[in-house]
Amino acid sequence: MTVAALPSRVPVVVVGAGYAGLSAALTLHDAGVPALVLEAADRVGGRILSQPTSSGVVVDHGGQWVGPTQRHLLGWAERFGCATFPTWETGAHLELWHDGALHRYTGDGPDGAPGLAEYAAATARLDELASRVDTGDPGAGPDAAAWDAETVETYLSREVACPDARRRLALAVQGVWAVEPREISLLHLLFYIASAGGFDQLMQTRDAAQDARFVAGAQAPALAAARRLGDAVVLGTPVESVDQDGDRVLVHTARGTVHTGRVVVATPPPATAAIRFRPGLPTARARWVQRSVMGDVAKVHAVYAEPFWRDEGLSGIASLYGEDAVGVVFDNSPPDAGPGVLVGFVYGDRLRAWSTLDGAARRAAVLATLTRLFGPRAGEPVEYVEKIWPEDPWAQGGYAANPTPGAWIAHGSSGWRRPCGRIHWAGTETADRWNGYIDGAISSGVRAAGEILAAERTAAAEVGCLGS
Amino acid sequence: MTVAALPSRVPVVVVGAGYAGLSAALTLHDAGVPALVLEAADRVGGRILSQPTSSGVVVDHGGQWVGPTQRHLLGWAERFGCATFPTWETGAHLELWHDGALHRYTGDGPDGAPGLAEYAAATARLDELASRVDTGDPGAGPDAAAWDAETVETYLSREVACPDARRRLALAVQGVWAVEPREISLLHLLFYIASAGGFDQLMQTRDAAQDARFVAGAQAPALAAARRLGDAVVLGTPVESVDQDGDRVLVHTARGTVHTGRVVVATPPPATAAIRFRPGLPTARARWVQRSVMGDVAKVHAVYAEPFWRDEGLSGIASLYGEDAVGVVFDNSPPDAGPGVLVGFVYGDRLRAWSTLDGAARRAAVLATLTRLFGPRAGEPVEYVEKIWPEDPWAQGGYAANPTPGAWIAHGSSGWRRPCGRIHWAGTETADRWNGYIDGAISSGVRAAGEILAAERTAAAEVGCLGS
Repeated sequence: MTVAALPSRVPVVVVGAGYAGLSAALTLHDAGVPALVLEAADRVGGRILSQPTSSGVVVDHGGQWVGPTQRHLLGWAERFGCATFPTWETGAHLELWHDGALHRYTGDGPDGAPGLAEYAAATARLDELASRVDTGDPGAGPDAAAWDAETVETYLSREVACPDARRRLALAVQGVWAVEPREISLLHLLFYIASAGGFDQLMQTRDAAQDARFVAGAQAPALAAARRLGDAVVLGTPVESVDQDGDRVLVHTARGTVHTGRVVVATPPPATAAIRFRPGLPTARARWVQRSVMGDVAKVHAVYAEPFWRDEGLSGIASLYGEDAVGVVFDNSPPDAGPGVLVGFVYGDRLRAWSTLDGAARRAAVLATLTRLFGPRAGEPVEYVEKIWPEDPWAQGGYAANPTPGAWIAHGSSGWRRPCGRIHWAGTETADRWNGYIDGAISSGVRAAGEILAAERTAAAEVGCLGS
Repeated sequence: MTVAALPSRVPVVVVGAGYAGLSAALTLHDAGVPALVLEAADRVGGRILSQPTSSGVVVDHGGQWVGPTQRHLLGWAERFGCATFPTWETGAHLELWHDGALHRYTGDGPDGAPGLAEYAAATARLDELASRVDTGDPGAGPDAAAWDAETVETYLSREVACPDARRRLALAVQGVWAVEPREISLLHLLFYIASAGGFDQLMQTRDAAQDARFVAGAQAPALAAARRLGDAVVLGTPVESVDQDGDRVLVHTARGTVHTGRVVVATPPPATAAIRFRPGLPTARARWVQRSVMGDVAKVHAVYAEPFWRDEGLSGIASLYGEDAVGVVFDNSPPDAGPGVLVGFVYGDRLRAWSTLDGAARRAAVLATLTRLFGPRAGEPVEYVEKIWPEDPWAQGGYAANPTPGAWIAHGSSGWRRPCGRIHWAGTETADRWNGYIDGAISSGVRAAGEILAAERTAAAEVGCLGS
């Protein structure tokens, strides 16, 4: 996976070895078209990163789950023999309400919990609106202009009278988009809901986006795909510029220039913005990249000798509506539950405040929260690790980029993913199904590779005609 | 201004030779501190570009005006002997209303024009709100969170009942921010109003932001400053990366590496985003840069043998509320009004539609509009030129960057312009007075240079103490 010198000529160059880039390369490889994958970082996987901690348990610092309708990711799991197991969720969940009250519950929420019925009504209404979004061209529908002109915060203030329901919806927005409701437009929210197949698909665990985890970590299928591609994946090689000149494309890196016929750019938008394209990208595409801004998320893991919370009938799942840095907690223990692992998500405003603390203070804040939820044993983990995605030099945020208000209707149709000459676009942000998820990344690579294969077939057919 | 090789060591490197970078370098130069200015393009001036057309008249493709409270720009005009003259505005203005009616008027608007009184009331209210913004830290005030959570479109829909007043306000937002009201938050709008000293300062011609023009074009003071700096300004040299290592900074370009002690980055945010910083920028700054997205504007100039519209008592100033590409027109004739020049501004949604046309169709659309306003002679200019700023490889838009909704309150205090180690930030986007204007660019350079001079004085004083 590392080579002394780059090849000077390849049919296709793929920029980025996250799931999207690997998927594009693998699809081309399967079709007999060699593709060279250039990855800036010293690893594959992009926003998916599974690492063993010093105590031996593998933690997923990035994307980690797979759901039953995510057929592209499930396909890779099957192809590469990557076993999954159901997300731990047996037992009672906890809800730390904004007033400091700690509720224990099973089902959808504590009995008589404030705002729960209104929350359900509001999400049903969002599903209804989302069903009217054309996921193939979200900026084009009859309601798109109005929906893209207001923030989700404005929509919720106006349409959801119950403040407790709004609190629940705000936590849902943080949890799913890793932003505050003020940062995204209603249209993007609705598109994303539609792309996942409904609000519950985004939010629920069993039979939804959080259904299962990978035994060896969610990076395992990416590592397997990279192994399959072998020397065609080159690490530590950021692409600096891409020149298109007729039917030739030059891809420049500090390690040399590669001549190619087609390029798939499969990087997160901020990394795309750091590549110089000559000639410049069409304005709509350039604007779209500029207006695709990453969410803000960190994941924190606390590892314990055992999942002690289960002794008290707790699932390890908790939602926090107060001032804690952590917004939700899951039981991220491995399948044998030898060690017990709790994962916390820190996002939006929570992340902004918490990430300015030093390491010891960040850890103390998280452990204080876990102690409040699960008792004093939670305060003494064997190990504590964290990953703050906005500080990642290549992703520059997470989970995904969210177009700014107005961007879908102004630039979406032309700028979202339309090829620019011989440059094709992949990345989960270009997916119309499970946008923002691993599954969307994989399908985007399949689509981009398909564009190239179709173009090559057309070119070959034309040569055939000319030759006959 | 071009050198064979870059110097290997200089006390300060300034990135970008727009007004902000030139101002930083000139301030340092005046204080006896040599600074090397590295400019990516083959000219200085950034978003200010004055070019003679083939018929000899100089047109300003970018920023062009100076107002009486813009003391930094006026100071440069005086220092470098760049003469100004009053913007042409004598005569009757035109208003092409959305229903197709063409009104001729003097004063603030046509007699009994729809929505005019309500527009005035709405702008007075905006001024009142703007007076509560702390321009030194816009995200920090008590109302900032609410104001940054909604788009201007939402605010106007809720607070301005009269649809005709909303039409006027939408054109004002296009004209001043080069965006649609849905694209910016109320807080950014209010900050910008406060930074200019009131809504009328932004909108009016005489005694306001559009008061006067430069005889030799608005780029003239920048060219004079660059001449003063001489060989210290190096063109055609994009900065690729900046490494900080203790008290040393390495600035890397394709033409070599410069070792320096301090850097001023004075580029538009999209150009800043294309520079790799090692270590990475603090998260708040990185997020701020990512969420500072450029407006969309083009300027079109039509040159005629004479300003024929004056024969009919027309000022050449027009506002267009319909579907035309052009939103406003000014008389941009030179001081002797030998030739007559009309300039049109195309922005926001208007630009998105128009810029997809080919060159001939773009020209035809603009001339059709001018003909409708000024009669058949307007359709036959001696010359027609245009500059579409989103297609500019370095500016990537104009006039300035507008933070996305929520960005001010989340990242403003830390990310707006606070130095990052030995990297200082200039650019009109970092100005608290006349943000987005040439004047703000110059003052931002003075501030950044002042930060460096203060730091050096402190360091020198410490050395002095140690030595005594």
